[in-house]
Amino acid sequence: MKYLIEPNDLTLNETERILSLAQSIMKEPRKFAQVCRGKLMANLFYEPSTRTRFSFEAAMLRLGGNVMNLSDISTSSHTKGESMEDTIKTISSYSDLIVMRHPKAGTPKKSIPHSFVPIINAGDGPNHHPTQTLTDLLTIKDIKGHISNQTVAFCGDLLYGRTVHSLVKALSRYDNIKFIFISPKELKIPDYIKEYLDENSYVETQSLEAVMDQIDVLYVTRVQGERFENIEEYNRLKDIYIIDPKKLENAKEDMIIMHPLPRVNEIDTRVDEDKRAVYFNQVRYGMYVRMALIADFVGDEAC
Amino acid sequence: MKYLIEPNDLTLNETERILSLAQSIMKEPRKFAQVCRGKLMANLFYEPSTRTRFSFEAAMLRLGGNVMNLSDISTSSHTKGESMEDTIKTISSYSDLIVMRHPKAGTPKKSIPHSFVPIINAGDGPNHHPTQTLTDLLTIKDIKGHISNQTVAFCGDLLYGRTVHSLVKALSRYDNIKFIFISPKELKIPDYIKEYLDENSYVETQSLEAVMDQIDVLYVTRVQGERFENIEEYNRLKDIYIIDPKKLENAKEDMIIMHPLPRVNEIDTRVDEDKRAVYFNQVRYGMYVRMALIADFVGDEAC
Amino acid sequence: MKYLIEPNDLTLNETERILSLAQSIMKEPRKFAQVCRGKLMANLFYEPSTRTRFSFEAAMLRLGGNVMNLSDISTSSHTKGESMEDTIKTISSYSDLIVMRHPKAGTPKKSIPHSFVPIINAGDGPNHHPTQTLTDLLTIKDIKGHISNQTVAFCGDLLYGRTVHSLVKALSRYDNIKFIFISPKELKIPDYIKEYLDENSYVETQSLEAVMDQIDVLYVTRVQGERFENIEEYNRLKDIYIIDPKKLENAKEDMIIMHPLPRVNEIDTRVDEDKRAVYFNQVRYGMYVRMALIADFVGDEAC
Repeated sequence: MKYLIEPNDLTLNETERILSLAQSIMKEPRKFAQVCRGKLMANLFYEPSTRTRFSFEAAMLRLGGNVMNLSDISTSSHTKGESMEDTIKTISSYSDLIVMRHPKAGTPKKSIPHSFVPIINAGDGPNHHPTQTLTDLLTIKDIKGHISNQTVAFCGDLLYGRTVHSLVKALSRYDNIKFIFISPKELKIPDYIKEYLDENSYVETQSLEAVMDQIDVLYVTRVQGERFENIEEYNRLKDIYIIDPKKLENAKEDMIIMHPLPRVNEIDTRVDEDKRAVYFNQVRYGMYVRMALIADFVGDEAC
Repeated sequence: MKYLIEPNDLTLNETERILSLAQSIMKEPRKFAQVCRGKLMANLFYEPSTRTRFSFEAAMLRLGGNVMNLSDISTSSHTKGESMEDTIKTISSYSDLIVMRHPKAGTPKKSIPHSFVPIINAGDGPNHHPTQTLTDLLTIKDIKGHISNQTVAFCGDLLYGRTVHSLVKALSRYDNIKFIFISPKELKIPDYIKEYLDENSYVETQSLEAVMDQIDVLYVTRVQGERFENIEEYNRLKDIYIIDPKKLENAKEDMIIMHPLPRVNEIDTRVDEDKRAVYFNQVRYGMYVRMALIADFVGDEAC
Repeated sequence: MKYLIEPNDLTLNETERILSLAQSIMKEPRKFAQVCRGKLMANLFYEPSTRTRFSFEAAMLRLGGNVMNLSDISTSSHTKGESMEDTIKTISSYSDLIVMRHPKAGTPKKSIPHSFVPIINAGDGPNHHPTQTLTDLLTIKDIKGHISNQTVAFCGDLLYGRTVHSLVKALSRYDNIKFIFISPKELKIPDYIKEYLDENSYVETQSLEAVMDQIDVLYVTRVQGERFENIEEYNRLKDIYIIDPKKLENAKEDMIIMHPLPRVNEIDTRVDEDKRAVYFNQVRYGMYVRMALIADFVGDEAC
């Protein structure tokens, strides 16, 4: 039984195969418009996440399959005291694939033995969100042409945020990536993530400006005020990490700026017009990589 | 990029083309059952409106397309502070058409420059609801055979209610329509609507009875108690405008009675059996005119 | 106009035809994958019931049809005071079939004269849930090979619970069924249900153990604490009716254990591994019998 709970559940080869399949779908979507015909996907969302739900839903529909949304699951049988195990058995009796979002880390993984069908984790609290990582990898691969041999900088809150941690781990399997971690000292990348990396493969800095001209891929996340004990410190820092046209003057011509979205104010909207801004392209890559994953999991053999 | 924010965004010619297309679909629905195959419509509803959402959804499904409902949008990313602009960019990255309902006037129009796909306004507060107007026009055209050269009466609350205002404006583009505005003096049609009309083309009256025998199309709306300062005045008036079998005795044999629904008590349910009552037919016309609009906006070339 | 409000709205012959059609669909699902193509089903749910809604939705989608979910109906037009009659007229103007769930007994039946399309009752409060009964009949027929000539035991709360009452009535139309009603005296099967049965065709007992070796079909329901005035009495009784591996030692090898789900603790999860446990099979039978019913009501002629 297939499943995807964390990014590295896929080997590097399998990951590359999914990314290639996504690129094939992008090139000839009509060829794939019926590969999931007659298949039903259950969106089992225990917390709202319109963006993620919508991306999976669009992906399945564009493969010719159907989708059932169970966002109201928490208002139904569960209130009658049914166990998660029984719910999974029931839902997987009706469907061909379960996409699960749950606020509690580990719930999708624990559901696997009770399911008759594959499960894809669509985010389990602070833990994993593997299709976001695949989205990020596809964005880099498709726009830059390759993933290896690049300088990838992460900027903002690197302490919390599964997105950054998962992508760092996933990139650690590629050759010759140089990592730059740019953050205030309160929000540095944790040691247990750095352990995935060669000591010589990364640098840490508080200054975005100092490293801007070296970066091939700039991955931006939000710096949230509530992470700081000292609000003055926050106010001092937050502007340093806001990406604006001025800060981009020293950047490479072919650098790309990524963001997992939603964005609040960490990227100035004037940057949206810059050809290096690819965060809205990421949205579409997210749909295509989910199409590839779904097609691989439950699509017709031909796929 | 196509869009429909207010009824007169369509020229008279374009309006006529949509109405004709709707009639073709009504005649041979099977011919159109696949014209939106592979297309995704996003129902982006910032306030609940089951009736309107359902009509759009049924329309798209009957054209062979798919629909994603985003009624939970307000509980999701937005609470994380995302701007409307970014939401529109995201949603339009996944879909081929956005249908937007919003409580605030002007929001759909402001969304247009941020969308990669066409937007149809499904009601923006007190402002516009263009597919209701198209529904009303199709009802008149299909049942009466033409729109021009008729006496159209509006009865009830003519002060508030975008439905009446939009339809009056839309009808003002047709030849030789005589308008009768029937309302209590508290709820008279506003001057800025009358400005669209020739001075000789309309009359205003408080008495439905006095004009009943002249009417070809009777458009009924509700008189709501909360509009009145004086509740006794309301109680005195409300019965005068309730349509019942007795009041219809003087009406023309081929008059039609329309209502945008939902109806509370402004039309006696005994009238439902009268062949002149067409307000439930309007519901189906609403679906067909939305099919025509969607097919025109995103359907296959052939259409 | 077809409808299904209570199980016995179908004659015994019609019931058998639906069960046979369900078995045909189970055998060759691909043959039926398009019989509802172009058809729209409205899930009109006035209370949440994810399990039932999902089963109907999966059924319609697997027949190639489409589904519109109206679980938010109570937050919409209704709040504006529309009558149920008008809502039904509207919804049935857009759709080809209505599936209605309502907390108030009798509402689906009262809706029939106002609908332009068939209505299936998906549960009206304490009253009926006919597709659950069809599910139960199909489970017995398909696994045991026949429905007649068996000993069917009902265990737990036999006083409340429409599921038991409906199934007893439905089984009373088959030949030579022996009924065993196992319950605490507080929760005995009501007299008005026993009236459907020959006096010699049933026995009542408080002891599951005493009759276990006679049972062909064991139908389990929950004993809820709130039904008892005396909580000590409840605590004493509740364990007696929990099905566990020990209690099953005396049971027939080919007995089947059924449960309408959701289950709380009335069947020990260790029993799930026993081949006699068929309650999760019931879930799939539920989908297939609904496919049969929908295909029969609105499917293509061929069906």
